[in-house]
Order: sequence, then C-alpha cells, then structure tokens
Amino acid sequence: MYAVIPAGGSGTRLWPLSRAGHPKFLHALTGSQASMLQATVSRLAPLSKPDMTYVVTGVAHAAAVARQLPDLPDDNIVVEPSARDSCPAIALAAAIIARRDPAAVMGAFAADHLVANQDRFLAVVRAAIEGAEAGYMMTVGIAPTRPETGYGYIHAGGPVGPSGVLSVREFKEKPNLEVAKRYLASGEYCWNAGMFVWRVDVFLDELERQSPEIHAGVTAIAEAWHRPERDAVVEREWPRLPKIPVDTAVMEGAAASGRVATVRGDFGWNDVGDFHTLGELLHRDEAGNVVLDAPFGPSSNKADVLIKDSSNVVVVPAGGRIVTAVGVSNVVIVDTEDALLVCARERAQDIKRVVDELRERGHTNHV
Amino acid sequence: MYAVIPAGGSGTRLWPLSRAGHPKFLHALTGSQASMLQATVSRLAPLSKPDMTYVVTGVAHAAAVARQLPDLPDDNIVVEPSARDSCPAIALAAAIIARRDPAAVMGAFAADHLVANQDRFLAVVRAAIEGAEAGYMMTVGIAPTRPETGYGYIHAGGPVGPSGVLSVREFKEKPNLEVAKRYLASGEYCWNAGMFVWRVDVFLDELERQSPEIHAGVTAIAEAWHRPERDAVVEREWPRLPKIPVDTAVMEGAAASGRVATVRGDFGWNDVGDFHTLGELLHRDEAGNVVLDAPFGPSSNKADVLIKDSSNVVVVPAGGRIVTAVGVSNVVIVDTEDALLVCARERAQDIKRVVDELRERGHTNHV
Repeated sequence: MYAVIPAGGSGTRLWPLSRAGHPKFLHALTGSQASMLQATVSRLAPLSKPDMTYVVTGVAHAAAVARQLPDLPDDNIVVEPSARDSCPAIALAAAIIARRDPAAVMGAFAADHLVANQDRFLAVVRAAIEGAEAGYMMTVGIAPTRPETGYGYIHAGGPVGPSGVLSVREFKEKPNLEVAKRYLASGEYCWNAGMFVWRVDVFLDELERQSPEIHAGVTAIAEAWHRPERDAVVEREWPRLPKIPVDTAVMEGAAASGRVATVRGDFGWNDVGDFHTLGELLHRDEAGNVVLDAPFGPSSNKADVLIKDSSNVVVVPAGGRIVTAVGVSNVVIVDTEDALLVCARERAQDIKRVVDELRERGHTNHV
Repeated sequence: MYAVIPAGGSGTRLWPLSRAGHPKFLHALTGSQASMLQATVSRLAPLSKPDMTYVVTGVAHAAAVARQLPDLPDDNIVVEPSARDSCPAIALAAAIIARRDPAAVMGAFAADHLVANQDRFLAVVRAAIEGAEAGYMMTVGIAPTRPETGYGYIHAGGPVGPSGVLSVREFKEKPNLEVAKRYLASGEYCWNAGMFVWRVDVFLDELERQSPEIHAGVTAIAEAWHRPERDAVVEREWPRLPKIPVDTAVMEGAAASGRVATVRGDFGWNDVGDFHTLGELLHRDEAGNVVLDAPFGPSSNKADVLIKDSSNVVVVPAGGRIVTAVGVSNVVIVDTEDALLVCARERAQDIKRVVDELRERGHTNHV
C-alpha cells in the first residue's frame, strides 16, 4: 500500500501548545519521544515503506516535516503552495502515485490521530486493502464508543465483497446528541475519521466524474512532478483548485452511486482533539492528575511540576518554568513560552473560541 | 515624628510574584504605580520629612530600596549586614535617631501594609504621638473585623494619659479560632500589626533594662554612624546581636511593667498577606474577577489577559505573556517569567508550603 498522510490543520483546541506555526501533528502529545506525525508513519510502516509513504503539508511546515521524517525521499514531501482542504491534497498524492503505479492501492490517514492497538489497526487496514483491491472506495469507520456530536458518521449497510467489508449507504454530518444516541444504539453507524483506502485508478475516475477541474489540475501537476517544469505547473494549476474536503467533493457522491464500502475499526482510535481528551489518554496518578512529559523542543529548560491537593488536573509544562497547582480540580493548565491557558476540563472544546478572540485582538503571533 | 520602616521579609505567601530576591514591599500590589514601600513612605510624609524617614533593610534589597526612595538621604537607608529580626533593626534606628534628637518621637511601620483611609490613619498616629510624648510606648492596635487566627493580639485595658489612649494589659500570641472569636466579642482586643510609636529615650531605656546586649551594640553602631569607623563597628557589633522580635525582646516585658499603651486603629488596614486577600482589595469586574495590572518591571512585555466564563479569579500577569482562563472559578493564577502558580483561593495561605517544597527540591533561584 502507498500511504498518504495529509498533515494540515493547526489543532486549535490544543492551543497554546499547538499553533498555526507549530501544529498538533508536529508535537509528541502522548508522552513518547515521537511526534504524532512520526507515530503515524511508524504505525503504517509494516504496510508501506518510506519511499511509498507521502506526506502532504503546507509551506509553513515543510521543513519541520522533512526533518522529522528523514527516511522519506524529498519528492514524497508534497508541499501545497496554499491550503485547499483535503480533496486537492489527497488527489494530488493519488495522481503522483498513479504515475508510478496506475492500479496501486493507496491509504490516506491523518497525521494527528492516535491508535492504541497497533495489531488490530493493521488487521483492519489489511481488510480495507482487500476491499480496495475489489474496486471499492473504502473508508475505515471507527466503532463508536459514545454518542459523540463532534464527528461525522458513516451509515453502513450489508456485507459486500471480501469478509468484513460493509456497503456504505450514506455519510452523515455531525449529529445533535439525540441523533447521536440513536446512531449509537442502532449499531449501523461508525465515526468518519477520514481514513480512506482505494485503488488510485478507481479514486481518480470518480474524481474526474465529480470534480473534473481538480482531476485535471492534479493530473497536470503529477505529470510534471519529476520534471524541471514542476514548479511552473504547480504555480499555474494549484491556485485554481477549489477549497473542498474529499468527503464532500468525492465520497458522498461515490456513496450515492454504491461505490463506497467500509470496515469497522475497533483499534482504540483517538483524535486527541482537546486537552481533556489528552488527559484521558495519558497515565494518571492516584488523584487523576496528568503531567504531559513529552519533549517540548530543544530550547526549553527542564520544567518542574508541583501538584498539591489537586485532582483531575492536566498539566502541559511547555514553558520551561516551574508550574505549581494547589487545591484545584478538573482544570487544564498549559504553560508555554509566550502564552498560558487555565481552562476547566469540560470547556476544553471551547479553546477554539479563545484562539479566535486572541486573533481578533491582534495576537497573530500567538495563535 | 521620625519614621522608621523595617523592610524585610519575603512575602512567601505571595510567591511566585514575591521572592526572597524581590520581596513583597518592592512590588506595586494595589494597581497603583507605587510599590508598597513607596506607598508607606508617602503615607507617613505628612508626619515625617524625608530626612527624618529611615528604612532598615537587608543587603539584598539596599539598592532597590535606595532607588525606589530617591528623596531619602543615603545615611537613612540602614542596611543590616545580616537579618536579626525586628528588635536589632528597630533598636539601631532608635539609637541613630537618639544621637540626632535624644527625646525624639519615632514611629515604626512595616513596609508592606495597606491603609485604605489615609486621614484616619494620620489621626490615629497623631493620637499615638501624644501618648508617646506622655512617656508611653505606644502600639497602634488594629480594630479587628473578623476572628483572625493569623495575627497576634493586644489586650487593651482602661484609658490612660491623653484622649483615646488605652493601657495595654498583655500581648497575646496567635489564637485558635475559638479564642479569636472570644477576643472579637469582648471588644477588648486589637490586632498587633507591629506599629509602634515611642520617644526614643523611653524605648532605649526599656531596651537597656531588658536586652542590655542589644542596647550596647546598637549604641556603639549609632555613635559611629556618621564617622569613618562605621563599617568596622558594624562588622564587629552586628553579628553578636541576638535574632529576636521587638515584641518579645521589649514590648511584652514593658507591658508587664505598665509602660505600654495603645490607640485603636480603624483606618482600613490590610497586610496583603496572600493573593486571596489581594483579590478582595482590588477592583472586581461583575463576575468577581480581578486582574492585577500593576507594572511588573521594565523588562516585562505587555501581558494580555483573556478571561471567559470564569468567576472570582485573581490573575497576576507578571510573565509578559498572554494569560487565558476559561470556565474556572475561585482560583488564583500568578504568571511570572520563571514560575507559574494556579491555586484555589481558599488555599492561598498554603503557598508558603509550596515554596518550602520547591526549596527542598533545589529550586533556590525560584523562591
């Protein structure tokens, strides 16, 4: 399988740790030395060698991505001149791969998700590869564990093709809580985590049918990818591509035509969407407190954290300073060199609004 | 009146803003531009001109004190070679003043207390001066407003001497809550805030009677104060002086001999002992949140504070960084360049223990 890893998005709900300039996927958020991007590449390594692994990222992060992944060839770091959402990013990678291997199977996986059970993950992706080889545009649906209203859902139908593969009836927008509870109870819905596996020829045919302008643009760029005119073609074609997610541009229409199928992913998936979630994932002490002891860049001094008579506190000591918490509960404390956040855990989703407000105040260097 | 301002103590419960290296009295804690020390000198200015105002401080703060008080003559900045608690500090000032004016009235006032009603304060001190001129060793007792267990108390008796002056029966240690309630109900007790007014000859006689070694030492130093041998005499005498508070060394014994009297201070006194108290003193927004917008030194960048859906939060933005609080209540957030504190307001008194623990961990630069 060719692995394609779109590495975009700034992880706003993880501000002030995650920034537009140093987004979530470049961070080691899980107490390991590896960044989420590096962990994603490692997770896929049994299925995809470095020269078959592509990362699509923006100009701001190209250098960081290249340095974090020294085993990937230069040409596998696909740098978008401007953000065009996921369809042009994934489509360009598909077109580049198709030039190498027209019927190759490719899988797209976000750079900033966590997987707890690696073996289950590989087994599920292998099942998806079988579905892809049979001609389906596969999604990996995440088996839901709660009535989550923050994700889109996939409505699965009956079995088709190889074992474990189910037809996809429809992609569903983020539901309200009542609808989400109904989805969960029915057993027919999975979370759409944006993991796709398909043959590049099948995908590109569907792209041409539904979004011919994107197909034409990325095909032209892919033809020039290993040639001197690459820069000129990218400069000409890329800005004309529409800003659109692959779900909307291709997958929803393909599902309506019966071309999409899914496998159920039950491998302990997490998108580490906010600090509350991060606190749930990491090792807690007996009082439920979590200190994220990931490395925070070479220039940080060693931080020291002192927590007294506190419970369910998440501390991210990324400012190189002493951090002390006394007598507090259910809060997130994120300390960075130029910004501090103290937030109730149940409000962790709302950090996005803080970032919006800071941007309005002119703190563009801090968001 | 000669004013003597002992400027010592590090204000541990105001860590990490207040440090051994930059203690409470050097800070502007009240939203004004003036430090607490400067505010103390200004408060006494109607009673005491700059050349009659003395500050006694340690070697670590001599330069900062001198710069904050440019109107005081050099010789009025009395620098202790080592900390000897309040008796040697106050006694040395008394001895120096006695050389200028043997029957002068002197008043001692801490450098880090707040007074809300300046006019009342001056009236009370003037009443104390009358008591002092009549030969009493006066204390200014603070009219208690709650059964506080954190202060010592003064047990007052009947009227003596000039109007408003009451005899002092006894100095009392910090009581437990039950005893404090009894004190408050009786109306006979005041808080001992360490404010004393006396004729220097009366004080020095009592000192000679109770602590002859301190009397001898400070007398020798005072004789040399304006002479070339001052350094040599200080070096010889000071280290031999015992470390002892003036209350224990002189006042308790003087009270037992009927030489102490008091005036009741009802001028809105506050010792700004911790951040919770500070939050009570400053202007609150409608949600009870307080941001201390005092100047925090020339090198600090302008901080920005964003508080969302939070109540009764005290923010001290002294780290030059963005500080955000989301959905939290009744917490103190103190942000400094090298240390951060997030503390429940009702635990503000316990910050002292955090500082002890940090010192044990070897963070001597941070406390």
